[in-house]
Amino acid sequence: MMTNFEGKQLIDGQSIATGTDYFHSVNRALGEDLELRFLNASQEYINMAAAAARRDFTITRAKTGIEKASFLDAIASELEKVRPELVEMACLETALATARIEGEFARTVNQIKLFSTLLRDGHWVDAKIDTEDLQRKPAPRPDIRSMLRPIGPVAVFGASNFPLAFSAAGGDTVSAIAAGCPVIFKAHPGHPATCEIVGRAIVAAAAASGMPLGCFSLLQGNIPQVGAALTVHPSIKAIGFTGSYRVGRLVHYAAAERAEPIPVFAEMGSSNPVFVLPQALKDRRNTIAAGYTAALTLGLGQFCTNPGLLIHQSGEEDDAFHQSLADNLKAAMGGVMLTPAIAQAYSSGVSDRSTLYGLQVLANGSETDNNGYHQPVLFKTSLAEFSHHPELEEELFGPSGIVITAGSPAELTAFAESLSGHLTATVHGTDEELEACKGLLDVLETKVGRLIINGYPTGVEVVASMVHGGPYPATTDARTTSVGTAAIYRFTRPVCYQGMPQALLPDELKDANPLGIWRYVNGNFNNTSI
Amino acid sequence: MMTNFEGKQLIDGQSIATGTDYFHSVNRALGEDLELRFLNASQEYINMAAAAARRDFTITRAKTGIEKASFLDAIASELEKVRPELVEMACLETALATARIEGEFARTVNQIKLFSTLLRDGHWVDAKIDTEDLQRKPAPRPDIRSMLRPIGPVAVFGASNFPLAFSAAGGDTVSAIAAGCPVIFKAHPGHPATCEIVGRAIVAAAAASGMPLGCFSLLQGNIPQVGAALTVHPSIKAIGFTGSYRVGRLVHYAAAERAEPIPVFAEMGSSNPVFVLPQALKDRRNTIAAGYTAALTLGLGQFCTNPGLLIHQSGEEDDAFHQSLADNLKAAMGGVMLTPAIAQAYSSGVSDRSTLYGLQVLANGSETDNNGYHQPVLFKTSLAEFSHHPELEEELFGPSGIVITAGSPAELTAFAESLSGHLTATVHGTDEELEACKGLLDVLETKVGRLIINGYPTGVEVVASMVHGGPYPATTDARTTSVGTAAIYRFTRPVCYQGMPQALLPDELKDANPLGIWRYVNGNFNNTSI
Repeated sequence: MMTNFEGKQLIDGQSIATGTDYFHSVNRALGEDLELRFLNASQEYINMAAAAARRDFTITRAKTGIEKASFLDAIASELEKVRPELVEMACLETALATARIEGEFARTVNQIKLFSTLLRDGHWVDAKIDTEDLQRKPAPRPDIRSMLRPIGPVAVFGASNFPLAFSAAGGDTVSAIAAGCPVIFKAHPGHPATCEIVGRAIVAAAAASGMPLGCFSLLQGNIPQVGAALTVHPSIKAIGFTGSYRVGRLVHYAAAERAEPIPVFAEMGSSNPVFVLPQALKDRRNTIAAGYTAALTLGLGQFCTNPGLLIHQSGEEDDAFHQSLADNLKAAMGGVMLTPAIAQAYSSGVSDRSTLYGLQVLANGSETDNNGYHQPVLFKTSLAEFSHHPELEEELFGPSGIVITAGSPAELTAFAESLSGHLTATVHGTDEELEACKGLLDVLETKVGRLIINGYPTGVEVVASMVHGGPYPATTDARTTSVGTAAIYRFTRPVCYQGMPQALLPDELKDANPLGIWRYVNGNFNNTSI
Repeated sequence: MMTNFEGKQLIDGQSIATGTDYFHSVNRALGEDLELRFLNASQEYINMAAAAARRDFTITRAKTGIEKASFLDAIASELEKVRPELVEMACLETALATARIEGEFARTVNQIKLFSTLLRDGHWVDAKIDTEDLQRKPAPRPDIRSMLRPIGPVAVFGASNFPLAFSAAGGDTVSAIAAGCPVIFKAHPGHPATCEIVGRAIVAAAAASGMPLGCFSLLQGNIPQVGAALTVHPSIKAIGFTGSYRVGRLVHYAAAERAEPIPVFAEMGSSNPVFVLPQALKDRRNTIAAGYTAALTLGLGQFCTNPGLLIHQSGEEDDAFHQSLADNLKAAMGGVMLTPAIAQAYSSGVSDRSTLYGLQVLANGSETDNNGYHQPVLFKTSLAEFSHHPELEEELFGPSGIVITAGSPAELTAFAESLSGHLTATVHGTDEELEACKGLLDVLETKVGRLIINGYPTGVEVVASMVHGGPYPATTDARTTSVGTAAIYRFTRPVCYQGMPQALLPDELKDANPLGIWRYVNGNFNNTSI
């Protein structure tokens, strides 16, 4: 299997690699070189990919929903063909468990099929029609119609923690393709071979479904210059990014400073605070402790929605609750983190929590640090102490949480008010106390994209109503989501046609409504013809 | 009437002014001081307005659609009460004609009522529901629901050229209020007294309809510091701006560089190219000449949608067409421009077109420059000459156009491809030649927010399907519109509720659908209960 990899860029349907600036893929669990070389994409290759994307945008933007859906279906089929080697390679490169990667594969394919269904339904284009009114005074009203159209070539930066679902054929790529945009995908250097397998599948799917081959290119790189050059390339019209706050902010600035600024949809993580109200704590102390620690340590805590903070009002349940949290945490597995950089940041962060910020260790995971393993660590502190160190609100990527005790209900709400933007917030409470704490819920709603009641933030459903986003610094654009079908709207803009002859209108806007989609016509929703 | 003005800030329902940093309002047509002093808002006043907006966002965001609609209706009523003095003052401050201002008043009130209707309908919130699926394997699917919620306090910068429709109670203010956001309005210094009349009407409407008084504040200023301080204030969560590219870009940068970057919806104008195809030119030469010059000189050309460029393929009609354009242009009225700065920029721009770029004057308006009047000027050039000076594509605000002759159909398309972003493009053609020129239309669609066939871009309809926006540099966010009901989406973000008890859900998301709105439920549109 290994000999199939050449570390080439996939550009405009071609595998290309000349140059000497290589990096290697690594068996992450063993720390051994996989002897697979990957070329850092040069400016020349970035230009080639961008030129192909720009050229083929003319074609992709004219593709019908059915044609784009066929492309997505073909991607799903091609991925199924390479499933065994893909799962094996993803596990090797990321040290994630096979069951986890198998689940992620299923999620990735389901996500592709969900967008395919969206395209076949066709209603997503937000078609609006205001027909002409020749009788209007003082002047007739012209015929005006609008719908969403693709924004242009999109650069996508893959995440380290989802080698399939937020990577080459992940949500950003798939939603951009669904919108009608060519994609230039920058592979995460943590799993370059996984990306190459997926990239080849996408190229094969494009060829099989009649899509122009500039519609998807894959660039490799373990140096910041690749992403930086892509961000400022004039042909790129939007960016999808999943990664750290530090890098996301750099990309956001660079995009804003371009001669033509472009939107950046950067999902930069979050510490996803969990609030536990007193009666819920009393009623379900051990269930909440087990649920919280399971969510905290799932996949070694390497999720954007990892619930890094838990706060509850101090009371007579404290000792028992903390003991239950500690017992659960101690039973949680350690493991090898996704990349050396992530492992290093986690170690430093955990160390800082003890030594720099003086938090008390409530429990450690039971495994040792042998063999490069990192283990879960749960800290505890009072809200008064926590509030002295605003940095503690920032995400520490990995399986470490902080349990915070507040003195009063008012302190809980004040804590909520003090929060910056997060992807999610969670509240555990009985119906009665949730109603009594409506003010807390109201405050939390202004801080997050998703408010969860009596559940946990991990496990982001891929559905129409999902919002995987939130106010800055969780993302750079709180008006969007990077999971769920609404992710497509990031890569579109409305175009309005005034006085356009029927024959030249897109099918979505024709009087006859040949696609049978739902439209907003003269102030009413219907799916009929005019 | 004049003695009623005190040049005060309207902050949190109070008229406040202490300080010494005043500027004066001017009778623009006569160039005479109106003896009305307006205080430049200090940082202290900006902080007060922001604190009130932030405080009252808690209240405005909880207001129902009906309550917000009542507020909008009250604004319309209050404006009707002050209509005579408002129209008089707007005419005095802007030198715009009474009929124009009367029309703009009607448009402004209609716009307010359109948003009121939108709120009463309630469907705009984009409610999506995916109900729980307890049978799903491997894990049950939780109940997930989402809808649009207001983004937070919004700063609005009024435009010079629409003292009513893009000013204190203009589209930005009204769409932000409709979304549930408090507004801090920065008045344009070209019409401060007009803004004060409108601002008082809004404050009276807020008081009459039970809205918290921090929901609208008005700040005056003729110095850049006022807007700059507002842009970077931490309580401001979005900006609506209509004005020049130069200022819009500054605001956009400043907002991106904040510790918490915020979205800027800056509409920065455009030169709105008009393409005339050969058969249309042959069939309707004089009609097009009359229509184009009317659109170019309407309101002394002081519209964002002013069609500053006209291009056609050179042919045997050239002389007759140009003569007809010249004849129409010569009959067009000159007048006093909105502000001294605009007049100065127009004079310089017209002068540059002759002397710096060597364009040939096709016609001047018939009136002299006496009394500060500025007149329409039409230039002509070849596409080859035009292409030597990319600056000529930039908007020259005022009634000056450039007629460009191209050598071939391919040159027309190449010109379209060379364009940067504009608000609109217009094509005149017969049905047959439009179909033959589908490639040109396709290119133009990627450059603009609105594509107009056989019409003119001036006269922006306030309807659901309108897109008054476009790719940079026409705006800073091509995904939005500043005219029409879709303008409300600029000031919202989606919020997702997972596992929320029915009693705590917003009415829009309750099973019973008490508002009877259209929703997307488990993949289907309906307006029924679950």
